Amino acid sequence: MTAVRTVDVALIGLGNVNRNFLAILETKAARLRSDYGLAFRVVGVADSSGVALQPGGFDPGDLRRRKEQGAHVRDLAGYRAHETPAGLLAILACDLVLEASPVNLVDGEPGLSVVRTALGRGIPVVLANKGPLVLAYQELHALAAAHGAALGFSATVCGALPVINIGQRDLVAADVISLRGIFNSTTNFILGEMAAGRAYADALAEAQRRGIAETDPSLDVEGWDTANKLVIVANSFLGMKATLADVSVEGITRVTTEQLQTELASGNTIKLLAIAERQSETCKLRVAPTVLSREEFLGHCDSWEMGIEIHSDLYGRMYYKIWEREPLPTAAAMLRDAVNILRPRR
Amino acid sequence: MTAVRTVDVALIGLGNVNRNFLAILETKAARLRSDYGLAFRVVGVADSSGVALQPGGFDPGDLRRRKEQGAHVRDLAGYRAHETPAGLLAILACDLVLEASPVNLVDGEPGLSVVRTALGRGIPVVLANKGPLVLAYQELHALAAAHGAALGFSATVCGALPVINIGQRDLVAADVISLRGIFNSTTNFILGEMAAGRAYADALAEAQRRGIAETDPSLDVEGWDTANKLVIVANSFLGMKATLADVSVEGITRVTTEQLQTELASGNTIKLLAIAERQSETCKLRVAPTVLSREEFLGHCDSWEMGIEIHSDLYGRMYYKIWEREPLPTAAAMLRDAVNILRPRR
Repeated sequence: MTAVRTVDVALIGLGNVNRNFLAILETKAARLRSDYGLAFRVVGVADSSGVALQPGGFDPGDLRRRKEQGAHVRDLAGYRAHETPAGLLAILACDLVLEASPVNLVDGEPGLSVVRTALGRGIPVVLANKGPLVLAYQELHALAAAHGAALGFSATVCGALPVINIGQRDLVAADVISLRGIFNSTTNFILGEMAAGRAYADALAEAQRRGIAETDPSLDVEGWDTANKLVIVANSFLGMKATLADVSVEGITRVTTEQLQTELASGNTIKLLAIAERQSETCKLRVAPTVLSREEFLGHCDSWEMGIEIHSDLYGRMYYKIWEREPLPTAAAMLRDAVNILRPRR
Repeated sequence: MTAVRTVDVALIGLGNVNRNFLAILETKAARLRSDYGLAFRVVGVADSSGVALQPGGFDPGDLRRRKEQGAHVRDLAGYRAHETPAGLLAILACDLVLEASPVNLVDGEPGLSVVRTALGRGIPVVLANKGPLVLAYQELHALAAAHGAALGFSATVCGALPVINIGQRDLVAADVISLRGIFNSTTNFILGEMAAGRAYADALAEAQRRGIAETDPSLDVEGWDTANKLVIVANSFLGMKATLADVSVEGITRVTTEQLQTELASGNTIKLLAIAERQSETCKLRVAPTVLSREEFLGHCDSWEMGIEIHSDLYGRMYYKIWEREPLPTAAAMLRDAVNILRPRR
């Protein structure tokens, strides 16, 4: 159909998400050419060991396999000693940055500097990493607007569930009256295991054994990952300039197996919810373990599912959830943002 | 923020949907200016009595109230005797057409000629009326592409639930493996009443009394409204050039109160489902009453709700539903399409 445009991409972070992005490029290259007129070429990469570039493009399959076999970027041809990811973005000729380095809520690095540098050069950025948005949502969007560079982040909330796109594109001119969501599947899995009789510590250990919880699970179980996503939601389609300081946060560490089983016996359950409630111009934001009827939509949103319900003045009551267990859908959500930024407008 | 652009609009059909669109213009005009830089001005209207135009713009509130008080377009200043809707679109200077005239599956008129004429002049069209798409999806999209005119239709499937947008914008590069949906709330309401013990005829009469079922309810109860929406889904994001002839259709007229109550007793229910199942390059399409567990997502999608579940190779399993009882959300979905077509690209 359309002429094929080659898109030179920098991948910042080569963990599960960007490795799955490489896997998608391997399987969907022909489809991306024929349906969207795009050919992605990975010209720069970064991990914790350093940065490397190949203007002719890395082979996606080879790059993915080497990382999975334990190689580091410093082992790759094109490795640049003493270069930082932001330093790479300051000089690299590329059309798109995919930022999926680890969440860092202290200073947002290395992601925050990468995003600032790329947007400052007018290069569009797609984020899976929530850190830069949580720390600097308004600054980064102002920077993007000033330089005419798109900033995609639909992969930062509920994996591949297009919560951000629905809020920004589909709730046109609406006032959100209330919103509730289950944004963290690690805690949702742990609560499910506890409802089945497991103690909190055992359920957490099981989540870690399966590799879905970090060795330091505090971001998940203390509710901060959920709060991060609520901050992004509040800024992106609740019309707020919110930060973490505006969210009252309680995690699941004080929920007991006994509480869960008592609720279960009376047809209820306990879920860790992100909640936004309209109060005139702004919304009250909180994260808290909440008793729900098993009959309710979110009371039925179990283990590997994440979901959201949105009640607005124009669009009735909407309910969305997704079941995903691997990082593939989140990587696909980054591809979705990239294609929607780069595809010719219909 | 941005400069405000005046958008001259023609409203074809002044039933519930376009009257609610007028109501939204009354309440959201300032918001549409400030957030989207758009000022909508209704310069042409048509109903079954004829067409009228006012280059300076009709007053939305006055127009809506007069229609609700029983006035017809032929009673309006600017009425054009002997002019057809398509004739109006052939000469009217306007930037957008909102087509919400009644569904006509025989020849698609008057909607089909309106859409052809507008797109042929490069004027973007937003549809709530499914008829033109069911009869001529491929032709109209080719016409739109040839004249660089956008064609929005997210209001045609599940009211304000953005099923079409999710399929076209959010499932980028995905292959849909299977899809099941409840697309018709009239039949969903009737089945709910029957599950509660009512006979089919009484449940249908109740739906008609509430004004949610047509005097001739055959489109709903015989499954054709659901099939229409499945055809639109298949063409818009299942990669098929499908027509009604490709859908095997069974309605709810043979479902009995006894069957429903027997299923209920064993924890199940019966829903009228639209089903698409991938078979290599194409999908098998059917509409049929289907037994579901009450525990399943769609088994829990009741009365005023419509919903869909989509299983794809890249985006996991997605579940979407909406609760809406009035035409307001469908009118808002037309506004959404209009704004997304006309707003400056981010």
